[in-house]
Amino acid sequence: MARLIYADNAATTELDADAFKAMTPFFLTEYGNPSQPYSFARMPKKAIKEAREVIAKCIHAEPDEIYFTSGGTESNNWVLNGTTYLNHTHGAIVTDNIEHHAILRTCESIERRGYPVAYMFADNDGIVQRKALESFLTNKANLVSVMTANNEVGTIQPIKELCDFAHSKGVMFHTDAVQAVGHIPIDVKDLDIDFLSASAHKFNGPKGIGFLYIKRGIKILPYLCGGGQEKGLRAGTENVAAIVGMATALQKNVINLSANIEYVRNLETELLKLLSQTGIEFKRNGAGEHVPGNISLSFRGKDGEMILHRLDLMGVIVSTGAACDSKEIKVSHVLEAMKVPKEYALGTIRISLSKDNTFKEVEQIVNILRQILIT
Amino acid sequence: MARLIYADNAATTELDADAFKAMTPFFLTEYGNPSQPYSFARMPKKAIKEAREVIAKCIHAEPDEIYFTSGGTESNNWVLNGTTYLNHTHGAIVTDNIEHHAILRTCESIERRGYPVAYMFADNDGIVQRKALESFLTNKANLVSVMTANNEVGTIQPIKELCDFAHSKGVMFHTDAVQAVGHIPIDVKDLDIDFLSASAHKFNGPKGIGFLYIKRGIKILPYLCGGGQEKGLRAGTENVAAIVGMATALQKNVINLSANIEYVRNLETELLKLLSQTGIEFKRNGAGEHVPGNISLSFRGKDGEMILHRLDLMGVIVSTGAACDSKEIKVSHVLEAMKVPKEYALGTIRISLSKDNTFKEVEQIVNILRQILIT
Repeated sequence: MARLIYADNAATTELDADAFKAMTPFFLTEYGNPSQPYSFARMPKKAIKEAREVIAKCIHAEPDEIYFTSGGTESNNWVLNGTTYLNHTHGAIVTDNIEHHAILRTCESIERRGYPVAYMFADNDGIVQRKALESFLTNKANLVSVMTANNEVGTIQPIKELCDFAHSKGVMFHTDAVQAVGHIPIDVKDLDIDFLSASAHKFNGPKGIGFLYIKRGIKILPYLCGGGQEKGLRAGTENVAAIVGMATALQKNVINLSANIEYVRNLETELLKLLSQTGIEFKRNGAGEHVPGNISLSFRGKDGEMILHRLDLMGVIVSTGAACDSKEIKVSHVLEAMKVPKEYALGTIRISLSKDNTFKEVEQIVNILRQILIT
Repeated sequence: MARLIYADNAATTELDADAFKAMTPFFLTEYGNPSQPYSFARMPKKAIKEAREVIAKCIHAEPDEIYFTSGGTESNNWVLNGTTYLNHTHGAIVTDNIEHHAILRTCESIERRGYPVAYMFADNDGIVQRKALESFLTNKANLVSVMTANNEVGTIQPIKELCDFAHSKGVMFHTDAVQAVGHIPIDVKDLDIDFLSASAHKFNGPKGIGFLYIKRGIKILPYLCGGGQEKGLRAGTENVAAIVGMATALQKNVINLSANIEYVRNLETELLKLLSQTGIEFKRNGAGEHVPGNISLSFRGKDGEMILHRLDLMGVIVSTGAACDSKEIKVSHVLEAMKVPKEYALGTIRISLSKDNTFKEVEQIVNILRQILIT
């Protein structure tokens, strides 16, 4: 069988070869517990320190503002719970209806505990506008949480503007940047946000590791209590190898960011151009400012899952929507929020290209789509 | 420099070579997101399923009773929070004063939210007796949490007896078995416990992965909300490689369990015999039923940290107490609970031997201790 064409990079990415190389010694020889005070802990401790510095630099943070977690989901659960329950009398969250389930379901669990959550509406282009925040932000709010880039359609939110407005009302701001970190420039100082969530396996790092940026001076409750790791805010023996792999992968992606963005944008443009030439009737969701390579396509009157499986049989790997939704056969909450008509929404696939895809692959994807959709 | 003598296996263990081998393909080629419905997710999905079966078998559970977490700390935080907040009106926890900080600090955080926690006293041998539970268990209790084996002194608790008593009062039972799984036989069916926490890096698996056993039919809130992974109870993209590594390591340890136990017990006996012959004045803490190889030694009038560092300089790696406590210069809460006199307690080191240590190493450890302590 020919090599697969992997075009589901928004679900997960291939581990960077250098990241794996950097991880290996911490599996094989340097296995000491970094919390211990002896010489055998020195290498893993040093590796964690350096990884923290590298990661901080990649998002323009300070090293002491980076806290390692088990991934984006934990980072999101932590920030929502850790800020709400710190502030019992004043705990409202303002978020929106196109967030990842790691935000939405956590908000629901917080609501069930009696804290109010307000859900802003994204517009039909998949953008949460400042005016939405203006109408939803009350003086009871404690935290605003809006994703940097949407996972299903790739749209980039006006984070700086939203954050400025939240701050003008004395409210903290968090962004789930899982789809953005390593893919578009992120500058937490310029954005002036209080919290940012990231996940390594979305930027060619390993699975099971991520981080939460917490602006210096901002208070939050720990979410995993126990040992004194991560300044007592995130207990548990450090996942040394994964931390090192995450830093290596992120640094590489950030060093090559402009070139990668340009290349992936060109792949995307080519794919859309070739697809238009086929005559297949489609609609592209979230075409405005978006993460390079995240292409949500809706084919009128078709079945997205059928398209996914036929592409799969032909060696092309794409998604129908969010990875975590793949067991549910219904219109995704994001497409619903964007008011994509049902006859289109049910025929949606997400192609997410990366720097590792080629023009040849893009051509093949379109050719195979043509075979599947024009019969 | 000569090879290190690693005798801090209660802090963390060397990753099993076969475990690393089993993990590698999931880093290098099989990186698909296991939640996806396409062929490229088949291998990781299958690997997770098989790992769950292997792990279940190792503790006499059913596969659907095993939930993967980021480690022992998360498992402990999950069970305490997830049972308490499910049951608002009836949320008391009963635990004891020699638990790991992942239990104690989580209990403190729950107390701060207004739920009562009762702390039973271990006896001077480091055992939580049934009569302690009888006097502490009230009809307000929702969960009893007692560790299977203590991390600092290795003592094994009468879990079955404690669990039986809790159940007779209609109260659920959890055990933090982080120091026990892979080191002594564990049969959750025979114990009839409701929850069990484990951590892979304590049994030659990788760091950053663990599991929570949840007895079929027992209800708990999710602790990480988001995607539908782990039947909706623990969201987040699965850490496939680490899950596979954990299963491989545990299976190997369990297959060789009797032989390992016998071997490590012999190492331990030899060490204590040789140490006695030196004439050094010492006290062994928790000498009763305990995890093989976990040897807490108190040297009267000495400084544990000084001993640790001098051993380190001579190439021997041990601990002064719990790994997570290593920054605090005070008598550990466990030794305090066991009423070890201060002049002994401050001179405490923990030597934790494993199947990978040798008789030659044991002899060297004692020789070096003699050099350090008899001057």
